[in-house]
Amino acid sequence: MSTGTEPILLSDIQDGVATITLNRPKARNALSIELMTEVEAALARLAADTSVKVLILAANGPAFCAGHDLKQMSGLDGADAVEAVFTQCSRMMKAIVRFPRPVIARVHAMATAAGCQLVASCDLAYAAETAQFATPGVNIGLFCSTPMVALARNVGRKQAMELLLLGKPVDAARAESWGLINRAVAPDQLDAAVAEAANTLAAKSSFTLKLGKEAFYAQAEMGLDEAYDYATRVMVANMQAKDAAEGIDAFLGKRHPVWCGA
Amino acid sequence: MSTGTEPILLSDIQDGVATITLNRPKARNALSIELMTEVEAALARLAADTSVKVLILAANGPAFCAGHDLKQMSGLDGADAVEAVFTQCSRMMKAIVRFPRPVIARVHAMATAAGCQLVASCDLAYAAETAQFATPGVNIGLFCSTPMVALARNVGRKQAMELLLLGKPVDAARAESWGLINRAVAPDQLDAAVAEAANTLAAKSSFTLKLGKEAFYAQAEMGLDEAYDYATRVMVANMQAKDAAEGIDAFLGKRHPVWCGA
Amino acid sequence: MSTGTEPILLSDIQDGVATITLNRPKARNALSIELMTEVEAALARLAADTSVKVLILAANGPAFCAGHDLKQMSGLDGADAVEAVFTQCSRMMKAIVRFPRPVIARVHAMATAAGCQLVASCDLAYAAETAQFATPGVNIGLFCSTPMVALARNVGRKQAMELLLLGKPVDAARAESWGLINRAVAPDQLDAAVAEAANTLAAKSSFTLKLGKEAFYAQAEMGLDEAYDYATRVMVANMQAKDAAEGIDAFLGKRHPVWCGA
Repeated sequence: MSTGTEPILLSDIQDGVATITLNRPKARNALSIELMTEVEAALARLAADTSVKVLILAANGPAFCAGHDLKQMSGLDGADAVEAVFTQCSRMMKAIVRFPRPVIARVHAMATAAGCQLVASCDLAYAAETAQFATPGVNIGLFCSTPMVALARNVGRKQAMELLLLGKPVDAARAESWGLINRAVAPDQLDAAVAEAANTLAAKSSFTLKLGKEAFYAQAEMGLDEAYDYATRVMVANMQAKDAAEGIDAFLGKRHPVWCGA
Repeated sequence: MSTGTEPILLSDIQDGVATITLNRPKARNALSIELMTEVEAALARLAADTSVKVLILAANGPAFCAGHDLKQMSGLDGADAVEAVFTQCSRMMKAIVRFPRPVIARVHAMATAAGCQLVASCDLAYAAETAQFATPGVNIGLFCSTPMVALARNVGRKQAMELLLLGKPVDAARAESWGLINRAVAPDQLDAAVAEAANTLAAKSSFTLKLGKEAFYAQAEMGLDEAYDYATRVMVANMQAKDAAEGIDAFLGKRHPVWCGA
Repeated sequence: MSTGTEPILLSDIQDGVATITLNRPKARNALSIELMTEVEAALARLAADTSVKVLILAANGPAFCAGHDLKQMSGLDGADAVEAVFTQCSRMMKAIVRFPRPVIARVHAMATAAGCQLVASCDLAYAAETAQFATPGVNIGLFCSTPMVALARNVGRKQAMELLLLGKPVDAARAESWGLINRAVAPDQLDAAVAEAANTLAAKSSFTLKLGKEAFYAQAEMGLDEAYDYATRVMVANMQAKDAAEGIDAFLGKRHPVWCGA
């Protein structure tokens, strides 16, 4: 689906690296219902594509993503329509967390509200030093309550509260020191940083990445005993997989492994 | 209630910014039963005062707060009296977390034990670079077990354990890097930093701040799915509030919002 | 038990400071079944030794610990044997967390996979600036799922995911900034840093350290209300102990306390 001549979401796969690019530059990539629908469809399609080893979430234009499309939101008719939008948005964010390959945010510019939530929802995030991060809903009377779910699982409480209560942006260096992103790099180094991470991931066993990512978010919600019982079961299952046998054999034989993805 | 001529807790409201100031400077603002009773009463009174938009917790004298009043504690008669003190203290700390407006700690000097817990319990905290933070109960055989509840929800485990086990102070710069405070500033910049945050908060919708603060601490105790379901409901309720309609309309119309606080 | 002439685990107690030292230098201290059995036995023996006030976990040779013994693992016969190894390893890691005195990791060199998990499982960790940390299981198709349980309870999600997904080492300075270790120091300062922490801990009440450490990990898995109820009970019990009475009396009398450990 597109508005006008340009598609609102671009999609590309090269050498196992899929990239989806938010492409509503004039609207600062605001997450309209149409754009969220496109992102959800792309995530479902790419999750089922075994040629995809890793996913990059990127954006075009002067902003990474400005969050919800307020113009569209303010025209919605009734609480049910509003609820449908936020339900869809939360479902999309969880689809990133549940996506069966690693997802890397490529943040070239300002990420705001649900745009900041997108970054927080990815497994890894690299940003240009000139990028900024904000959850400014409080400034318009609409607290960033759903963005805070992802944000609060990335940074400390005082830091999350600073973003949420004051509604002011922080720069990429601070976002790195807080743990919201992995690295802030010079703008002209952003593609290289993202490509290095993506290519590193594309060379791993897809089976192992899927198993590990799923286990990470599952154990994060458990107490220590339950988490160890669970992770031990995951380890045992992992050891019985062909890719682990291949990987260990290659390691002991000092050769490169050849993954089968199972 | 006061000891001698000076009140042990000062209270002030200016332009929507309430300040309560611990005022037992000679006792390093130790949290006697009387002082905790005063703080609890002030929190209850200010929570009900709709003119208050934000609360600053400050202190007078050479220390921010030295924690419990050990002289008073050692004179208590029996386990029931001891239990009553710690129960009151935990209730006071939770009243800060549950206070329906943002609470900012203004830490001009050493914050120790339950004094450090006060800082950790506030939503935001600004400190003079010369301030220090410690949970030294272990040094007197009385582990800072209740302070650790707040501390461990602000900083990492190794960092919390360093404070709790070694019982030595860390400086404000380290406290900032760990996430215990938002910023360490030059002592003569502390009032400006606190005022800037407080004035920023006082200009927001009180309705939105209350809703967001409450949602933040609620979602922090939930798994991802439950947190998103909850935050989505909060968002939908927020969108139906007058202040959200006003805020979005003002934003789209490029004008300043006028909040009604509902 | 030993392989050849050298014991695979060295053990020493001096002035209340116990040290166990992994001693399979040629195998980069890989955690063979035999070595884990030795560590578990040492932890059980030292936990019961009331002369021990604090435990240091150290290692000999070019690496701190390379994780599981892959050569041994690949020769195991069947899923039951594999499960037994991971169950033993998780039990050993939890025995560090549950060890009734503080445990300090002395990390002089690379800590990998379950070796990194050892560091994350200790209460405090000091490392040489030249040490590195990695969870590289993903590189051999075997995701570091059990190490991640400890790792994810020390560092932020993006940071944990960087280590787990990319499988590359990070240096000690970064590990400190992330919270995985307490301090990175010059290699020739490592012994001094560890000794200072250990001697500080050895001078505390063993009763208080045991009570506090246990309470720390217990409250970490609770919501705020439950944690405060629990910590309040711990505080009241602590106040009734002889060492608290002695510590408070010594503090108010400006003298050094003499602990009885109860």
